Amino acid sequence: MEKTIIKNKSNQNWEDFFKLDLDRKMDFYEKDGKIYDCLFAQQLSKELLESLFDIADKLRKTTKTKEGADFIASLLSHKKAMLYFAQPSTRTFLSFLNACHILGMKTSEIRDSSTSSEVKGESHDDTVRTFSSYVDLIIMRHPAPGSAERTAWLLNNTNRPIPVLNAGSGKDQHPTQALLDIYTLHRQFKGHIDGKRIVMVGDLKRGRTVRSLSYLMKNYKNISIDFVSPKEFKMEQDILDFLKAHNIPYTETEDFASVMPKADAIYMTRIQDEHDASGESKKVDYSPFYFKEEHLKMIKSSCILLHPLPRRFEIDAKVDNDERAVYWRQERNGMWIRAALIAYIFGIENKIK
Amino acid sequence: MEKTIIKNKSNQNWEDFFKLDLDRKMDFYEKDGKIYDCLFAQQLSKELLESLFDIADKLRKTTKTKEGADFIASLLSHKKAMLYFAQPSTRTFLSFLNACHILGMKTSEIRDSSTSSEVKGESHDDTVRTFSSYVDLIIMRHPAPGSAERTAWLLNNTNRPIPVLNAGSGKDQHPTQALLDIYTLHRQFKGHIDGKRIVMVGDLKRGRTVRSLSYLMKNYKNISIDFVSPKEFKMEQDILDFLKAHNIPYTETEDFASVMPKADAIYMTRIQDEHDASGESKKVDYSPFYFKEEHLKMIKSSCILLHPLPRRFEIDAKVDNDERAVYWRQERNGMWIRAALIAYIFGIENKIK
Amino acid sequence: MEKTIIKNKSNQNWEDFFKLDLDRKMDFYEKDGKIYDCLFAQQLSKELLESLFDIADKLRKTTKTKEGADFIASLLSHKKAMLYFAQPSTRTFLSFLNACHILGMKTSEIRDSSTSSEVKGESHDDTVRTFSSYVDLIIMRHPAPGSAERTAWLLNNTNRPIPVLNAGSGKDQHPTQALLDIYTLHRQFKGHIDGKRIVMVGDLKRGRTVRSLSYLMKNYKNISIDFVSPKEFKMEQDILDFLKAHNIPYTETEDFASVMPKADAIYMTRIQDEHDASGESKKVDYSPFYFKEEHLKMIKSSCILLHPLPRRFEIDAKVDNDERAVYWRQERNGMWIRAALIAYIFGIENKIK
Repeated sequence: MEKTIIKNKSNQNWEDFFKLDLDRKMDFYEKDGKIYDCLFAQQLSKELLESLFDIADKLRKTTKTKEGADFIASLLSHKKAMLYFAQPSTRTFLSFLNACHILGMKTSEIRDSSTSSEVKGESHDDTVRTFSSYVDLIIMRHPAPGSAERTAWLLNNTNRPIPVLNAGSGKDQHPTQALLDIYTLHRQFKGHIDGKRIVMVGDLKRGRTVRSLSYLMKNYKNISIDFVSPKEFKMEQDILDFLKAHNIPYTETEDFASVMPKADAIYMTRIQDEHDASGESKKVDYSPFYFKEEHLKMIKSSCILLHPLPRRFEIDAKVDNDERAVYWRQERNGMWIRAALIAYIFGIENKIK
Repeated sequence: MEKTIIKNKSNQNWEDFFKLDLDRKMDFYEKDGKIYDCLFAQQLSKELLESLFDIADKLRKTTKTKEGADFIASLLSHKKAMLYFAQPSTRTFLSFLNACHILGMKTSEIRDSSTSSEVKGESHDDTVRTFSSYVDLIIMRHPAPGSAERTAWLLNNTNRPIPVLNAGSGKDQHPTQALLDIYTLHRQFKGHIDGKRIVMVGDLKRGRTVRSLSYLMKNYKNISIDFVSPKEFKMEQDILDFLKAHNIPYTETEDFASVMPKADAIYMTRIQDEHDASGESKKVDYSPFYFKEEHLKMIKSSCILLHPLPRRFEIDAKVDNDERAVYWRQERNGMWIRAALIAYIFGIENKIK
Repeated sequence: MEKTIIKNKSNQNWEDFFKLDLDRKMDFYEKDGKIYDCLFAQQLSKELLESLFDIADKLRKTTKTKEGADFIASLLSHKKAMLYFAQPSTRTFLSFLNACHILGMKTSEIRDSSTSSEVKGESHDDTVRTFSSYVDLIIMRHPAPGSAERTAWLLNNTNRPIPVLNAGSGKDQHPTQALLDIYTLHRQFKGHIDGKRIVMVGDLKRGRTVRSLSYLMKNYKNISIDFVSPKEFKMEQDILDFLKAHNIPYTETEDFASVMPKADAIYMTRIQDEHDASGESKKVDYSPFYFKEEHLKMIKSSCILLHPLPRRFEIDAKVDNDERAVYWRQERNGMWIRAALIAYIFGIENKIK
């Protein structure tokens, strides 16, 4: 991957480029017909998803033996990754870190911007360019919307670009979360997502996971979606319009119980009060959107229960032991699918049997 | 170790289980006749101690060559450890981290709970379960008493348990500190701890190291102990009762000088003022419980001087260069015996020659 | 390197030793005719510089292939490094960390003294001695002047010394920054530093990089230097005296434009306001000491532009794309020359082809 220059360097300034529709700038983040920077859920085509599912399945199978694990850990032993997490995160951080370790990558971490040179007045651009000087991959999480894309854009305009993976930028994009969600549906449904009825519950307005997952549904046939939320936190119109445009039927309701029996998968989310402008979360009774132990008898025996975690009270801990509760597996799927994504980005997927 | 379910899952709730006597719940933390989670000093039987001493000795010998070190580092190269240190610690953290590195494990760290998902309102249970999703071993230090046991109990009740090592939970348990203390006695006495007179000095009331060490003395013959402390910080009655029950003679005194000449080992401790309720440490003159340079001529030529570190003024830095001062070696022993423990837990001890 | 005792242990106390002239104590930090601890720019002889340049060049060449990178990463796979950064640093930290990773070293980090045992009242000496218990190399950055030397002095007086690398101690010394600066001149001038005219710009009074670089000029022939700074932040007299003593001609000016056309290299620095006693930086107009896009046409086509980074406004970001702007390469050179230094310290340089 060394010394290859992205073909179409942007001649525009960032502000103009950033405003472009995603499909007009997508190929700026690709190389040789593959994604180079993973920034948006919209980059996850059905074909790519199928490839990644296959790589992830092989990774977990091969690493079951010591011999296999050592082999996989030899594949990227010559590569170094930087995990730049300017925003608190346990799960995504550990998931990516251990994905890197599975592949044998050496890792550096910046998890607290107070220890960084930004305190000396360095620009964000210079900071990430510095990171890129020492490593072969940047995995970044940052509170500013568009920050991961900005980093990728910046580096692609230099003579030494390296891939950038978006581990959450602001509240807009978190593509590997979408990836692990869809991978979980894929695994639990044994490859047959087509025809399923998906119920999404909670703070749909501000939860990026449900937005991304809705978007990815376009890749499958005969999907239907039920959105269950307090009226204050309904799914945004842009997603509803998207579903209409792709002929994906959906309903909206505040009555969780009414859709429980029909669900093939229930995707629970927590209230996103970190995005409150002025305490609006506290004015909403969220309890009708909890999944409680007594609900287990209301759902199908084949229905699966997902949650991006962390949870608060949306799912009673007593539910955890039910075999339909797959959120802990979902979490672990995140590590494997991220390892698969990294393997894909570095073009070593064919070495994984 | 994958996919094995601990045989006797607890059917009790945590609160009831936690209150059980240690010997009633010990086998819940074992597997195949070996300890699986290392949580209490009481788990350290004489037989286990001898095994661990032997493994540690072999590890330090084998790793003296590059070839040997590379071999040892290949043994657990397929395993990942999580170091979860919710409480400040340098020594224990670095000791465990480098023990993992000696064995070739990949490591993840959470050292500051402010960067974790707990800020998003996640429960402690969910946090540690998340950690367990990505790794094969959790090493944890936490200010809450019983927190390591709680973690082990929780994970043993899931379908994907992993071993938990207690690196200090509250002021109650810190079993690997006990392990390194006894390993130091073993090494310095060339295997002959029997018959030794051990003097323990300082804040005996609140120091968990002297408590654990006293406890472990039951494994040896003809031990006698002298407790030297200000009257405000005397050894607690439960330990004195334990010694009586095991026929281990002890004395209690405030006169340090009187016991110095008789000691085979002097175990110094610092005042534990972090456990002060209302500044009681400041009311005590601790200086009679310092080991000063002039004391070197009062102790036997074979007497050894230990300290769990960190120290403040209990031992004059000028004492460091005396060959009887073994606390720096003691510290280093901690790394080796922890590596031995991890090797034992993963059942690779027979590969170490 | 194990178990070798530095021959000439100091019999003096630290305060007296510390005050000695550098050339009187230099051999205390050497072993077998090579530097053992890298603490001062003054240790960097021309012969050593040439060796390190050669090792660094080989490292970057060999690691271009996976096979080569894996070989290099096998050389110190049996060694462990400690990065002790008690002061915020991104660049130096990541540079050293990845240098260690290139060589296959296992690494431990202390980056925030609030997580360390110092909070329990441990002395700095005990803290660093503890670090030395677990690892084979200490790389340290600390705000206190002389702190790295103190650590090396302390450890060299024990029976288990390990090398210490100074990654910045106070405002006095940062030898590996000097090393990467001179390595950059070496590479950009294809080995011919002799005869070059170097312009140093900015806060020369308080910038340690320009001080070190000035010092190293004694190793080359027919160098001349132009110091460009506001009158408040002129180069200190001791450096001017040093240059006179070594017959290195220099000028001092506030007129940046006047020396631009003559420069073979321009070394820009930022204002060091973290060293302000009472806001003196704010009283100075620093803008005449900025390098702006329009200046590109005023400098030679062969002139190179350096900066130790981080920058604020001293160099317009638009200048970055000019091929004469080499500060990003300079940053990356830091990683390679540090890897070379570590390889040299551990005596493995002859294995690198």
